[in-house]
Amino acid sequence: MKEIFKQIPLYRFLKFCNEENMDKVVLDCGAGGDCPPLSLFSEYGYSTYGIEFSDEQMKKANVYGKIKNQKLNIIKGDMRKLDFEDDSMSYVYSYNSVFHMTKADVLKSINEMKRVLKPNGLLFVNFLTTKDFRCGEGPCVGENEYEQMDDDIPVIHSYFEEQEADRFFQDMKILYKEDRVLERIYEGERIRQGFIDYIVKKMD
Amino acid sequence: MKEIFKQIPLYRFLKFCNEENMDKVVLDCGAGGDCPPLSLFSEYGYSTYGIEFSDEQMKKANVYGKIKNQKLNIIKGDMRKLDFEDDSMSYVYSYNSVFHMTKADVLKSINEMKRVLKPNGLLFVNFLTTKDFRCGEGPCVGENEYEQMDDDIPVIHSYFEEQEADRFFQDMKILYKEDRVLERIYEGERIRQGFIDYIVKKMD
Repeated sequence: MKEIFKQIPLYRFLKFCNEENMDKVVLDCGAGGDCPPLSLFSEYGYSTYGIEFSDEQMKKANVYGKIKNQKLNIIKGDMRKLDFEDDSMSYVYSYNSVFHMTKADVLKSINEMKRVLKPNGLLFVNFLTTKDFRCGEGPCVGENEYEQMDDDIPVIHSYFEEQEADRFFQDMKILYKEDRVLERIYEGERIRQGFIDYIVKKMD
Repeated sequence: MKEIFKQIPLYRFLKFCNEENMDKVVLDCGAGGDCPPLSLFSEYGYSTYGIEFSDEQMKKANVYGKIKNQKLNIIKGDMRKLDFEDDSMSYVYSYNSVFHMTKADVLKSINEMKRVLKPNGLLFVNFLTTKDFRCGEGPCVGENEYEQMDDDIPVIHSYFEEQEADRFFQDMKILYKEDRVLERIYEGERIRQGFIDYIVKKMD
């Protein structure tokens, strides 16, 4: 029996991808960690590629792939400068990842994802929103951009207003957009997180 | 290769259930339709039970179960008066269903779901919110309760404020709550829907 992946919104993206008729080739930007969602796409017959900035997270994902006997193809990389050809990927996603940068770098990264995506290809990307409990915490380095500690390492977090990220997708078709505020128990504390998810299509 | 079910939030509920150590017995209230999510629980080894108010939707679900060779046990029933014993189900859910009633009947239904749930059992239920594009449409029959046409049949729809449904779960532990506003394309039109999902635990 297969596990359920914790990145639940990617089940929706996978459903959208399964309903298209393109080559089953997918790229994950920020693909590392101990539960890499490329494994789910691999289960559904996709050829997978991933890039990951952190050596440690890349290592965890590759250990996981080895255990499951899956070739996930996760390599070191920077989504601000993707080492893939124009129009080469049917599907691209970045889950809980792209917002760990300044908004200027988010723009660069999304432009890169759009560049490598094939015409008619689908892109999933999500953002933190200003409704998140951490928005406003730490030194401010721009408009709703803060330097915050993640596991004792300072990391930029960018938070977006409800309509703000629409501008990234003006040349694309927005198929699905979901603004979510969730409350859950994390390390014994109730926390309130805000995300906005997009599924968009590259125009022909 | 298994299909991806369209009721994406139930993947999260299934993940929560898989992480518990109770008997794998689940009840769906409003279990009918052409893509019954009990089938997903069946794939994961659960004994499934479902009740459905509409003969037509019940029939569709049973046709689906037969094709997949799954015994889903979906019978005719009314969630305001469940024909199951107290404390008999480890897991109960009602997806996109309970809000097709007045708020008085929603309360009755949720009390019934809580009654049949075992101590420490988990319940998923979701509601329409006042952010939904249809809130305010049609004859008003109560506080954010409207009679609206679904497939040419008049059906009550109840819409809830962000905190309003918390009162149903005051004797339970809220493990997860998600307030979602989504925009998608439905029959060629962009629509904006509002839902709030709860995963709650019955106290011992």
